[in-house]
Amino acid sequence: MPYTSPVAETRFLLDKVLGYDRLAQTDLFAEAGADVTEAILTEVGRLCDEVLAPLNRGGDLTPAKLENGVVRSSPGFKDGYKAIAEGGWVGLSAAPEHGGMGLPLTLNTAVFEMMAGACLSLQLCPLLSQGQIEALDHHASDTLKALYLPKLISGEWTGTMNLTEPQAGSDVGALRTKAEDNGDGSYAITGQKIFITWGDHDVAENVCHLVLARLPDGAPGTRGISLFMVPKLIPDAAGNPGERNNLRVVSLEHKLGIHGSPTCVMSFEGAQGWMVGKPNGGMAAMFTMMNNARLGVGAQGIGVAEAAYQHALAYAKDRKQGRTPLGDGAIIDHADVRRMLAVMKAEIFAARAIALDCGMAIDMAKATGKDSWNARAALLTPIAKAQGTDIGCEIASLGVQIHGGMGFIEETGAAQYLRDARITPIYEGTNGIQAMDLVGRKMMDGGEAAFRLLQEVEDTAEAARSKAPELAHKVWDAAETLREATEWLVAQEAGDRNAGATAFLRAFARILGAHYHLKAALADPDGPRARLATVFIDRILPEHESLLVQARAGAGQLYALSAEDLESA
Amino acid sequence: MPYTSPVAETRFLLDKVLGYDRLAQTDLFAEAGADVTEAILTEVGRLCDEVLAPLNRGGDLTPAKLENGVVRSSPGFKDGYKAIAEGGWVGLSAAPEHGGMGLPLTLNTAVFEMMAGACLSLQLCPLLSQGQIEALDHHASDTLKALYLPKLISGEWTGTMNLTEPQAGSDVGALRTKAEDNGDGSYAITGQKIFITWGDHDVAENVCHLVLARLPDGAPGTRGISLFMVPKLIPDAAGNPGERNNLRVVSLEHKLGIHGSPTCVMSFEGAQGWMVGKPNGGMAAMFTMMNNARLGVGAQGIGVAEAAYQHALAYAKDRKQGRTPLGDGAIIDHADVRRMLAVMKAEIFAARAIALDCGMAIDMAKATGKDSWNARAALLTPIAKAQGTDIGCEIASLGVQIHGGMGFIEETGAAQYLRDARITPIYEGTNGIQAMDLVGRKMMDGGEAAFRLLQEVEDTAEAARSKAPELAHKVWDAAETLREATEWLVAQEAGDRNAGATAFLRAFARILGAHYHLKAALADPDGPRARLATVFIDRILPEHESLLVQARAGAGQLYALSAEDLESA
Repeated sequence: MPYTSPVAETRFLLDKVLGYDRLAQTDLFAEAGADVTEAILTEVGRLCDEVLAPLNRGGDLTPAKLENGVVRSSPGFKDGYKAIAEGGWVGLSAAPEHGGMGLPLTLNTAVFEMMAGACLSLQLCPLLSQGQIEALDHHASDTLKALYLPKLISGEWTGTMNLTEPQAGSDVGALRTKAEDNGDGSYAITGQKIFITWGDHDVAENVCHLVLARLPDGAPGTRGISLFMVPKLIPDAAGNPGERNNLRVVSLEHKLGIHGSPTCVMSFEGAQGWMVGKPNGGMAAMFTMMNNARLGVGAQGIGVAEAAYQHALAYAKDRKQGRTPLGDGAIIDHADVRRMLAVMKAEIFAARAIALDCGMAIDMAKATGKDSWNARAALLTPIAKAQGTDIGCEIASLGVQIHGGMGFIEETGAAQYLRDARITPIYEGTNGIQAMDLVGRKMMDGGEAAFRLLQEVEDTAEAARSKAPELAHKVWDAAETLREATEWLVAQEAGDRNAGATAFLRAFARILGAHYHLKAALADPDGPRARLATVFIDRILPEHESLLVQARAGAGQLYALSAEDLESA
Repeated sequence: MPYTSPVAETRFLLDKVLGYDRLAQTDLFAEAGADVTEAILTEVGRLCDEVLAPLNRGGDLTPAKLENGVVRSSPGFKDGYKAIAEGGWVGLSAAPEHGGMGLPLTLNTAVFEMMAGACLSLQLCPLLSQGQIEALDHHASDTLKALYLPKLISGEWTGTMNLTEPQAGSDVGALRTKAEDNGDGSYAITGQKIFITWGDHDVAENVCHLVLARLPDGAPGTRGISLFMVPKLIPDAAGNPGERNNLRVVSLEHKLGIHGSPTCVMSFEGAQGWMVGKPNGGMAAMFTMMNNARLGVGAQGIGVAEAAYQHALAYAKDRKQGRTPLGDGAIIDHADVRRMLAVMKAEIFAARAIALDCGMAIDMAKATGKDSWNARAALLTPIAKAQGTDIGCEIASLGVQIHGGMGFIEETGAAQYLRDARITPIYEGTNGIQAMDLVGRKMMDGGEAAFRLLQEVEDTAEAARSKAPELAHKVWDAAETLREATEWLVAQEAGDRNAGATAFLRAFARILGAHYHLKAALADPDGPRARLATVFIDRILPEHESLLVQARAGAGQLYALSAEDLESA
């Protein structure tokens, strides 16, 4: 489907709103200057627009298939994947010592958002490799690193995450997969895993599974879980794919969307695996992988939203129905259609800014080693994930609505974005779990990181009072309301916090979105960004008030409503 | 899929909240006593649960097919339809002189909501017949009535609406289908129509098309449109299906959802038709049909929401993941899952109350002839349609979310509700058009009907101050805020009204929902309804404030953002 990667929009955000140039001033990211960044965004943009986007519809219509135990990918996906790998984009932010480019995760986030907009199903494959690369880089032995990282970074091999089992979804600690010591440094892995994205395929020569399993003496729950590298083909002495491991794809899921992404049920039958990290240290390693992936999934939601928006905009400019306030024009000139488009664009801007700023915090933490950046990254990650994916679904749904009856017809393509986007609020930790993470773990500092971020929002608004008085005033007020709610929140028990978690996260995203829009308005005072900021701050930001009412409503009211009360009749 | 018709819930609403017993006190609906109503709800409930709901999944998996020019319906749909027809349910609210039961539309709305929850695709067929029956009853000649109404009411024949053409969707006036006088009292109809629901099938012996077309001297736009009855099989002298008419199904659409409902492209090739109503009076007749259908579509959204809710509730009670505040229980005890379920149930209650109260107003208008009831019905119709269908999609989406990863797997069934529901905010007038109808045509009385309704809300809240002080206070305040916004609205130009229309409608629905919840709380002060009312009024009602900010934001801001500004890059 036609798609134009948002290169200029991304550059504006990086340069004018997020202070991306701070990265090139660090030793670690000295290479990430404006020229390199622009060149990469442009080159990946071309890849997305010309190579990946044309694959998107075919991936939906011709899902990956399981044939004689082997997964055959959707038409053209092999070439599409090759183009990604050969561009070096799998290793964009991976360490140079194993062949990566060592560039900022911020840039990687922008690049992978573009790929997701072009073809979400295919983008998932390198995204998972990146999570695995990160986990190995932090936790694997030098031997494992040397064996796997170059192949993963070059894209010759791909990586998967094997967490979920039928009884162990959000509750990872309930897993039953076993790992027994083979006595030769390897382990025998036995168990069944479900929802394994790109668990098998024919787009690369090997599939490397990172599998959570329990040692015989592993404690129950998450504390007794270890992580293992279990390759499909076991590398030989020269590091080339050798003997077939004892693992297989049992079946593929029939899903609402992302048909081009094979979702596998995997069976490990005494498969040979090598431990990554320490015994019983699997969760820590897995979190490294997941944290990155969470930001990446947030970017997926934004990418699909962007694609759905472009698709709806093109239709709205073309479709003529009735008289509009501007004459016999296209439906884009009807007030309610223009409202939908404006809201879509304003929401995408806000969510993208949150995601890229989260990337900035991760990069700055890595480059400076400062705890405050780490805390900011930790705080922004669940917001970036949940907000990016929530708006992904909402905007894809608005895209369908703008198409009217045609939106419900599959050939139009609008519905695919909705079907594809719908998984993103679920995987890598449901958005409910993201919200509980935000109000729980991420507030264990007494809200310090949140207050620091809000101070920045208020300072920016304060400084903007002369140039954009109305907008600045609204943003400052909203930040103050959120500050009070945060003060309330950190003083509550877990139960009350959790009962308002989703609303709190959403309110936080509203204030942050307004903050970045205000910065954009200051950078482009007479341009489209200032006009878009007005739409966001006047129309969308006010939602924070009712959201914070919900956030503070407490658990009592919800639990007063018993399971029996919820029965329908 | 398992489904239990909400019989008790509906009875509670009718008896304790909506004053349904007022209908039996009128001459027209003297038959609609509590016994008859209960018996019908129970009997239809059984039909829905035992006969229709089991067809729902098969309709999705095995869509209607076009074979050699004939549509073959999904497995079991013929028997399901027969059961509906034989129960007499197509004619539930049709005039007794042609074989109808003459019962209130309120009851019909409740009954058809249940059928939609059980199997939306199949329910569409009799729903369209009902719209046609209504249009014929009001506008057709006695000859046409005598020929068609008995067959439609008995369900032996079914009805369709043929409005849309490729260039004429929301802009019906752009249609090109022609009608030429045959000189024998009939007309030759020529043109192509799209999106014709149940445009052909094998579940009944004849399909009666009501077709909008233009006479040779018909003015451009909507003023020159006439309405024609164009049967698939032309009735012979005895009124039995005779000669095949010159019309055919060109193709079926491949849709996101409601796969069991055949959506046809119809070609009329000099087909014989008979005029319904006056020359150039087609729009008036069509509006009769559509107004009813709009309430019916609102009820569809509620029905699917109910089914999705039940499905998610069952999963949440069964699925165990992690420790909850109530112990090692099921996920229903996690705060965020309970929040989602509570919101779903509270939203369904509110939307259902609006729809049934809209039915009440239509019935009271018919029974008493009073203009005030007509005005109330006219006001409530767009709200019932838009709110019922918006929550239909939102609740189906929450249903997917509660299922976690399983929700994305088609076998689970949760995704079907989302796919099916997604058409309802689009057809029978998009929800944007409903909103413009509310702030435009329905405010041409200077807001009188709205203020009268708000007075009722405030009076109820006033009277509730002693029994439910907190809830009453919040509802009264919200009604007052809406009153002010309505006063503002009626003083504006169309442009500014339309720019805030969707938000205004949604805010209105919030206040009405709170009103009915408050009445429920008063009727069930220590029971589950009072607890549910608290959730709605504390958590959901506050949204009206930010919605009314949006409603009053005006058009200037939206049009300041030019079509060029909306371009992405």
